Amino acid sequence: MIVNGSQQALDLCARLLVDPGGGVVVENPGYRMAHHAFEAYGAQLLCADVDAHGLVTEQLGKLGPAKLAYVTPTHQFPLGSFLPIARRRQLLDWAAEQRAWIIEDDYDSEYRYAVRPEATLQSLDTRGCVIHVGTFSKTLSPQMRMGYMVLPPALVQPFADAKRVTDRHAATAVQRALARLLEDGSYDRHVRRIRRLQQARQRALVDALGRHLGDEVEVQGAASGLHVVAWFRAVPAAAESALIDAARHQGVRVHPISPLFHPSKAALTSTRSAGLVMGYALLDVDTIEDGVRRLSKALLHLRRKASSHHH
Amino acid sequence: MIVNGSQQALDLCARLLVDPGGGVVVENPGYRMAHHAFEAYGAQLLCADVDAHGLVTEQLGKLGPAKLAYVTPTHQFPLGSFLPIARRRQLLDWAAEQRAWIIEDDYDSEYRYAVRPEATLQSLDTRGCVIHVGTFSKTLSPQMRMGYMVLPPALVQPFADAKRVTDRHAATAVQRALARLLEDGSYDRHVRRIRRLQQARQRALVDALGRHLGDEVEVQGAASGLHVVAWFRAVPAAAESALIDAARHQGVRVHPISPLFHPSKAALTSTRSAGLVMGYALLDVDTIEDGVRRLSKALLHLRRKASSHHH
Repeated sequence: MIVNGSQQALDLCARLLVDPGGGVVVENPGYRMAHHAFEAYGAQLLCADVDAHGLVTEQLGKLGPAKLAYVTPTHQFPLGSFLPIARRRQLLDWAAEQRAWIIEDDYDSEYRYAVRPEATLQSLDTRGCVIHVGTFSKTLSPQMRMGYMVLPPALVQPFADAKRVTDRHAATAVQRALARLLEDGSYDRHVRRIRRLQQARQRALVDALGRHLGDEVEVQGAASGLHVVAWFRAVPAAAESALIDAARHQGVRVHPISPLFHPSKAALTSTRSAGLVMGYALLDVDTIEDGVRRLSKALLHLRRKASSHHH
Repeated sequence: MIVNGSQQALDLCARLLVDPGGGVVVENPGYRMAHHAFEAYGAQLLCADVDAHGLVTEQLGKLGPAKLAYVTPTHQFPLGSFLPIARRRQLLDWAAEQRAWIIEDDYDSEYRYAVRPEATLQSLDTRGCVIHVGTFSKTLSPQMRMGYMVLPPALVQPFADAKRVTDRHAATAVQRALARLLEDGSYDRHVRRIRRLQQARQRALVDALGRHLGDEVEVQGAASGLHVVAWFRAVPAAAESALIDAARHQGVRVHPISPLFHPSKAALTSTRSAGLVMGYALLDVDTIEDGVRRLSKALLHLRRKASSHHH
């Protein structure tokens, strides 16, 4: 089903699959705009941690009952991990036990650099419980509002009905244009071309971080996608907003990772480092290099300020 | 607020303003896709009748409590009546008493032929309780999915939040193109041009109905809009589907009015004549003439069949 970007896919899932007060398993940190869609229909978010291999599936059994889970198994948002096959099976087993639906948000799998494409969670699903969500926002433009859902058979009719009463259908001219790009191979060629382009940008970012910040920064999630997470080893999470401010002062805008954690888990931030979610999809390599140089200056200023406060 | 056609406006109203089990006043007959949007959020529809002057506002007091009313005061759908000023004031007084919101669905006021443009219900509203909904579906194309809401101040923020979590925003390229057409006067010129065109089509339809069917048909709602209702005086409502079938047999597709009545009021159809909702927006005058000729043949066949059954 064609939808107005993946946000509408998530909203329709929330509308049809969330009962007020019902549990929905989500990743923490995670894609908060999805969480908001579930909460808008009264969901109780059940947060599972994320580690270097994605959702920590061992926690699923302890989260309590849920009829829905929302995951980003291809490239966890924001940490960028790929959910290994064993965890995928654990997740599917949990869903079978709970009789739960799983939303697989595949928001940027077109951008796989260091890794081969893997089977989707939906392709491992033998029970028809996985809703696969994809988007053209990351390959063409988020301004188009074009996404899609690959629905299990049992959900096709209710979702078609819900889409119809919500806003009838996606704009047909854009659908026709997209269909043509897909059919004649233009879209695939475009994706291959921008994949190379984005890989070069990511390399520029990771290289620049290494050159300017060295061991002070740990980069996570670079195997695919359009962003990485940079952890600032010596900066505590509490100083994240000071880091953002210092960077802004140097003329560079960076995004903190804190807002991607569920507020109820904010206490845990005391034990972690400051983190930045660094997107590079709209920046050329010179701008990236320049931005990281400014960011390293910002870090230096922040240090000096901290040490002068200390004396 | 720009929305994906007026259906999304109605859906957002239902989402934010309808409580499960809550009453929503609607016109009967009326625009059923709006009613479905309200019912999807658990609304209890409170049907008010429609006469030659639109919603029968005298009935409002007897319908029971409601927090929302949905009306088409400019050109009642489907009967085409214009709601007179006195009834508009009664409706606004009722809303003040009930502390209810009113949705004014202005789906085709661009097409006013025999009457001058009138003040909208929203312009008479001193309490900020009217939500005005408009669309580009009738002037440009329904396939674009472009509509708009003029919201009372108190509703701007909640609706903006709801739109954001629902699907973020309307496609920006289309918005920019539309803004340009509106700003440079092209849109107004276009509307004036197609208004003349549609008026000619309507005249062709009404003339053809008069020539081919004469007194057998009563035409309603021709002062504005893109459709009229044709009542077949001698055909009972129960024979509406037989009339549709006979027309199809003559190669002309017509739409019955029955589905636009609330099912709970179906019993009342025994007292009325068969009615057709006849849209002409996509037909040239020759096709219209030919279609009415076929329709009159269909009616003749239907008569013969009925009288042969009788013998």
